[in-house]
Amino acid sequence: MAAASTASRLSPPSRSHVRPRSLRPPLRRSRFSPVRAAKLEAVLSIGSHLIPHPRKAASGGEDAFFANSDDSGVFAIADGVSGWAQKDVNPALFSRELMRNSSSFLKDEELQVNGDPQILLMKAHAATSSIRSATVIIAVLEKTGTLKIASVGDCGLKVIRKGQVMFSICPQEHYFDCPYQISSEAAGQTYQDALVCSVNLMDGDMIVSGSDGLFDNIFDQEIISIISESSGVNEAAKALAELARKHSVDVTFDSPYSMEARSRNFDVPWWKKLLGAKLIGGKMDDITVVVAQVKTVAVLEDEGGDIEEQKGNEQSIAVAVASAEQNEE
Amino acid sequence: MAAASTASRLSPPSRSHVRPRSLRPPLRRSRFSPVRAAKLEAVLSIGSHLIPHPRKAASGGEDAFFANSDDSGVFAIADGVSGWAQKDVNPALFSRELMRNSSSFLKDEELQVNGDPQILLMKAHAATSSIRSATVIIAVLEKTGTLKIASVGDCGLKVIRKGQVMFSICPQEHYFDCPYQISSEAAGQTYQDALVCSVNLMDGDMIVSGSDGLFDNIFDQEIISIISESSGVNEAAKALAELARKHSVDVTFDSPYSMEARSRNFDVPWWKKLLGAKLIGGKMDDITVVVAQVKTVAVLEDEGGDIEEQKGNEQSIAVAVASAEQNEE
Repeated sequence: MAAASTASRLSPPSRSHVRPRSLRPPLRRSRFSPVRAAKLEAVLSIGSHLIPHPRKAASGGEDAFFANSDDSGVFAIADGVSGWAQKDVNPALFSRELMRNSSSFLKDEELQVNGDPQILLMKAHAATSSIRSATVIIAVLEKTGTLKIASVGDCGLKVIRKGQVMFSICPQEHYFDCPYQISSEAAGQTYQDALVCSVNLMDGDMIVSGSDGLFDNIFDQEIISIISESSGVNEAAKALAELARKHSVDVTFDSPYSMEARSRNFDVPWWKKLLGAKLIGGKMDDITVVVAQVKTVAVLEDEGGDIEEQKGNEQSIAVAVASAEQNEE
Repeated sequence: MAAASTASRLSPPSRSHVRPRSLRPPLRRSRFSPVRAAKLEAVLSIGSHLIPHPRKAASGGEDAFFANSDDSGVFAIADGVSGWAQKDVNPALFSRELMRNSSSFLKDEELQVNGDPQILLMKAHAATSSIRSATVIIAVLEKTGTLKIASVGDCGLKVIRKGQVMFSICPQEHYFDCPYQISSEAAGQTYQDALVCSVNLMDGDMIVSGSDGLFDNIFDQEIISIISESSGVNEAAKALAELARKHSVDVTFDSPYSMEARSRNFDVPWWKKLLGAKLIGGKMDDITVVVAQVKTVAVLEDEGGDIEEQKGNEQSIAVAVASAEQNEE
């Protein structure tokens, strides 16, 4: 065995790198329009794709989701948990009702959700009357470019920037394969158990979110490749779901799920090990994928609806908005 | 090869689980003190430990950090980058000056940092006149329990809650072993390239942050074990640094660093592979560790400095503060 290289870090590549220091948006002006002020806002372009578990295709599976590009953008995924004692209740009822409530409560002014995903989860859960349980993630983009996230269980969310995973949320679980879950029972988790976090996004960032059926069956490097090769968010979501689906039914694929299982000391019986076998294969499951691209748009201040795209701006949007709030002279 | 188990998820364990629904803080009142209102605030108890690279022990290494429990709590780590062409400049000068500036600018009212780690990084970087570069992380806790983070490069930060890593930031790099870095040169990164994110913390959460010398040499499960066994934050920081140091000089330890290197297709020459060798071993480096524990304290509203601990409250602090802002009858 050789020692790992302990070579010092290298200097940064000496790229000639011009920063877009000026944040003044390039407004399109005709001779006839008056000079108008504009500010930069972040919006999401969202695509999605759901492939049910092979044995649940007829009923549509137990995942549910919603995505909405109104305002800046919001999406949510719920993964109905099977394996309950009461076999006669379809787990999809709970996840679908939870998503329906989340979607309809989002803009209910009386409920005062105010774009807070944890409050939205609390209110949607309280209003859900179906029994059973689900893992859930809700993500809401603010106009400033901050993505606010509340997650209970093992739905995933990653942010890809310049070909790297720059942000990723961790799953929460009671033990291997038993995630935290929002439940109709008092013993389950509530909004108070959610991981609540946020990340400042930049123009061009790609968000990949999904149920565990996605992340159990696909590696980060595969996600990055597909994102870089896809022509749009819907194509990317479909390609990711289809690759995860292919891996999920491949008993020879050493999936993230099987690697995790082995790292937790799950494996084939000892006599199979003697024959050289190991626990391997994909994990069949419902697979839900949401892909969202962050774009910066210039919004004219006297016409809320008049949006003009500001392309190629790699600034942090949060910074850009503050700096651009000035009148064109 | 056997297929991975595709067993359905199990129901949550039927724990009898009493939630602390009432957030009214248990004030200690004597017959002589008037009834006073209180609110809950989050504070950090912070420990730290630094072990320089074995060959740099005499100069103290090239990492620098500061930690401060004033207000709610703040800490920062900078890892000076070696490997520059100019061998005659000590990389520690840059990281130390950056940390000194960060520490002194934090409360400078004229600079209007307002507890924003990205703004603090911008101003501290602008004021740093040493040459060279460093990876850097700055984390600031708000009284509401939100930890705000700005990170450039591969310093790490993890939040451990109930024996699990619940939150972890991703490293940013140009390529393997060349992280993003705040630099004296224009080609380097700036505050605009930082990963900026936040996470809502709860009473009892443990934060483990460090330079890559820590996370290249220690696994999450080892971190969790040490945190659970340590009697305090300083003991935990010391134990983590010492285990990482031990692994870093162990050429037979299959470290996170060597595993990552192999996954990027770095390995020993082909002829060593034929003999069964593989790239393995720890990575010698400066090792800086900051461990911080989140505590909820009840602050009497008419006496800013009068703090009484509120123990055993597992609520999200952000929620707790809002609910507790009411007068005692």
